[in-house]
Amino acid sequence: MKQCNATHDPARRSWVESANLPGADFPIQNLPFGVFTEGGKRRAGVAIGDRVVDLDAALAAGLLDGDAAVAVEATAGGTLNRLMALEPRYASALRAQLSDLLRTDGPQLAAARAAEQRILLDIGQLEMQLPCDIGDFSDFLTSLHHTERHGRFKGLADPLPAAFKSLPIAYHGRASSIRVSGAEVIRPHGQYKDAQGQVVFGPAPMLDFELELGAFVGRGNALGTPIPIDQAREHIFGYCLLNDWSAKSIQWWEQVLGPFLGKSFHTSIAPWIVTEEALLPFRLPAPARAPGDPALLAHLDGPSDQAEGGIAIELDAQLSTAKQRSAGQQPTLITRTHLQNLYWTFGQMLTHHASNGCNLRPGDLIGSGTISGESDLARACITELTNASRDPLQLGNGELRTALEDGDEMIFRARAAHGGAVPIGFGECRGRIRAARH
Amino acid sequence: MKQCNATHDPARRSWVESANLPGADFPIQNLPFGVFTEGGKRRAGVAIGDRVVDLDAALAAGLLDGDAAVAVEATAGGTLNRLMALEPRYASALRAQLSDLLRTDGPQLAAARAAEQRILLDIGQLEMQLPCDIGDFSDFLTSLHHTERHGRFKGLADPLPAAFKSLPIAYHGRASSIRVSGAEVIRPHGQYKDAQGQVVFGPAPMLDFELELGAFVGRGNALGTPIPIDQAREHIFGYCLLNDWSAKSIQWWEQVLGPFLGKSFHTSIAPWIVTEEALLPFRLPAPARAPGDPALLAHLDGPSDQAEGGIAIELDAQLSTAKQRSAGQQPTLITRTHLQNLYWTFGQMLTHHASNGCNLRPGDLIGSGTISGESDLARACITELTNASRDPLQLGNGELRTALEDGDEMIFRARAAHGGAVPIGFGECRGRIRAARH
Repeated sequence: MKQCNATHDPARRSWVESANLPGADFPIQNLPFGVFTEGGKRRAGVAIGDRVVDLDAALAAGLLDGDAAVAVEATAGGTLNRLMALEPRYASALRAQLSDLLRTDGPQLAAARAAEQRILLDIGQLEMQLPCDIGDFSDFLTSLHHTERHGRFKGLADPLPAAFKSLPIAYHGRASSIRVSGAEVIRPHGQYKDAQGQVVFGPAPMLDFELELGAFVGRGNALGTPIPIDQAREHIFGYCLLNDWSAKSIQWWEQVLGPFLGKSFHTSIAPWIVTEEALLPFRLPAPARAPGDPALLAHLDGPSDQAEGGIAIELDAQLSTAKQRSAGQQPTLITRTHLQNLYWTFGQMLTHHASNGCNLRPGDLIGSGTISGESDLARACITELTNASRDPLQLGNGELRTALEDGDEMIFRARAAHGGAVPIGFGECRGRIRAARH
Repeated sequence: MKQCNATHDPARRSWVESANLPGADFPIQNLPFGVFTEGGKRRAGVAIGDRVVDLDAALAAGLLDGDAAVAVEATAGGTLNRLMALEPRYASALRAQLSDLLRTDGPQLAAARAAEQRILLDIGQLEMQLPCDIGDFSDFLTSLHHTERHGRFKGLADPLPAAFKSLPIAYHGRASSIRVSGAEVIRPHGQYKDAQGQVVFGPAPMLDFELELGAFVGRGNALGTPIPIDQAREHIFGYCLLNDWSAKSIQWWEQVLGPFLGKSFHTSIAPWIVTEEALLPFRLPAPARAPGDPALLAHLDGPSDQAEGGIAIELDAQLSTAKQRSAGQQPTLITRTHLQNLYWTFGQMLTHHASNGCNLRPGDLIGSGTISGESDLARACITELTNASRDPLQLGNGELRTALEDGDEMIFRARAAHGGAVPIGFGECRGRIRAARH
């Protein structure tokens, strides 16, 4: 943890008491960025416990200066793109000054507490927005378990595509239909083959979720200029939960050049971006490659990426049905998995993405792909959880599912935890299926 | 041609003499939109002959009013997105007033000519830019001939994907790396399998062009709201030439979920958007479906789209090599094809795209896919022209090509021509291959 700084200090506690509760997503060691609207205006904020620091207000109160003030000014207009485009030291300075303002024993404690009413908002009252303009969304396929299971469902002799262990497979996704957690997901219409093999058009019957982690690009690269593997993390601003909703019936029929309408109807992300910096204490070696796997090509093989390209993040998915909610029952935990189930690191994804000279821009979003592991509980989509509909999923109240039904809500959570560091969370990524429109 | 108006009148001629020359791309009946920089500032313009009307200057000169003035104000900042988002009548009013200003017998002829020095710029002196912020780029696969040939190259028993005649197949492309005509195309590095079957990383050896037409979305649709087939054209602002550069060696190896790095290194478009309105006189019935083809599903079957969903546009591609240029030789025409070679109309592409509720935004770009026809000359990429490298392409000076080499330049042109209408052109889409960087 030699790169860690005072913002990571596990001894720090905040005078925002909710930040110190065991299991809090947003202790003072986290300080994730998000964007909300207030009075119709978009503003940037940083979460602490059950409160949000209104960055404009904190700046106006004279509590921030230097690089931290530059960072806040870069959020003018209520998108994080310009902050993401800056050298990482600006967001770092902002987090450091906020940590000092919010800690129980900070040098500006009195001034901060005096400004509390002006600078802290109630997280539950805020209407969260997408954190930035997402220029391009790229989605990867990096879980060997997810990929192999799907290959077996299709009856492939070799369930893993030939290139899987040589490069992180990916496709371009749709940026326009990314929505922040909480937005209803309208069941899409689409063309698909029905049980009789007829091509029909109607509400898509096989809706699925896919549990992913997203990475937001920070500083970009110019067209034609690749990103060396050991500099890749310097180009990542932070991470968020991502639900890559999928209409499998549409996807199976349409897919010739990759997913298109089967996924472009909606993608959900959590509103909070946990920064690359906040995750430093949770760094792990890159997941080990198996004996016999092809050797990494040089451009994807960096000492730093190999040593700490992984992250200790556990993720889970809960399903809440209309029946459960009306009976006052809790959602059912259906997936629990770990980021280390991925075969490739985010650094490798980023470096691969730019290896042909493709320019990444601040605010571009990169999805990890479904983070499935080997165990049954680590299956991170319903297609896997049901063995492609063969074994219906049984929920806590006895309901069965082979796909998501109208009224079903998916709730993702994730948590970084490692060694003596204070665990930090990612907030929630929620989405509820609404019936198809007529 | 009942929807046509005075701007389409074949009798109109312009006092900008170059607009009246036979074969001119930009006669007074065209008036395409583009964006250029002057003194570091982005500005919108409309092409006429070898000149460009500086819209800000024309407005400042008091030559435009009403809806036309609103249209120009919507181009403030030098992107067309806001103009694209308006009802089509605004751009239509602007074209109508410009047509009146530029014609030999217009009511404001004296005022227009008096302002000539202020409002007309030399097209050859302008640094053209992308016409708008392209939020998402979607690329289709709609030529049966292109698709069948590629299927046969792969040795497929059925060279046409099952869904090809039921829906227009598409994939999400990369928006960040779209560049305007003239920008050099740097040969990408990438992973591919070499002749010995080894997976290697290096400059991609098999570069290809793909001749396409692009459509820019005008007014968008809200997430969850599809676009009825007979309203689709109202959501298209206009069309441009598009070169979907492809690194085949990368694509063959990486492609599991569609093209990714094989295409994301660069996409070229011509700087001029020929409006939907300007193309009205060139409308044709949708290309006929063959007997035995599956019936169109209702949502893709509109009387208006069937009656006039096609467009009479001929497109060609020329290849200019370094050797040709140094010898003062002309480029070689290698492809001549027609938009009616596509199996699907742009209206069907747009309606399909939004049929799952996916929101299209003003300035989104939709590529037709490679516009290959049945004849040998109508093969619109080198892979087809060489039967997948089996029969090298012989150029005018005897040079042979199985792929594009460093220094090769592709030049696309297109022309709408039909009946008694004055033919209109699309300008040029050029790109020259530069050697891979070290």
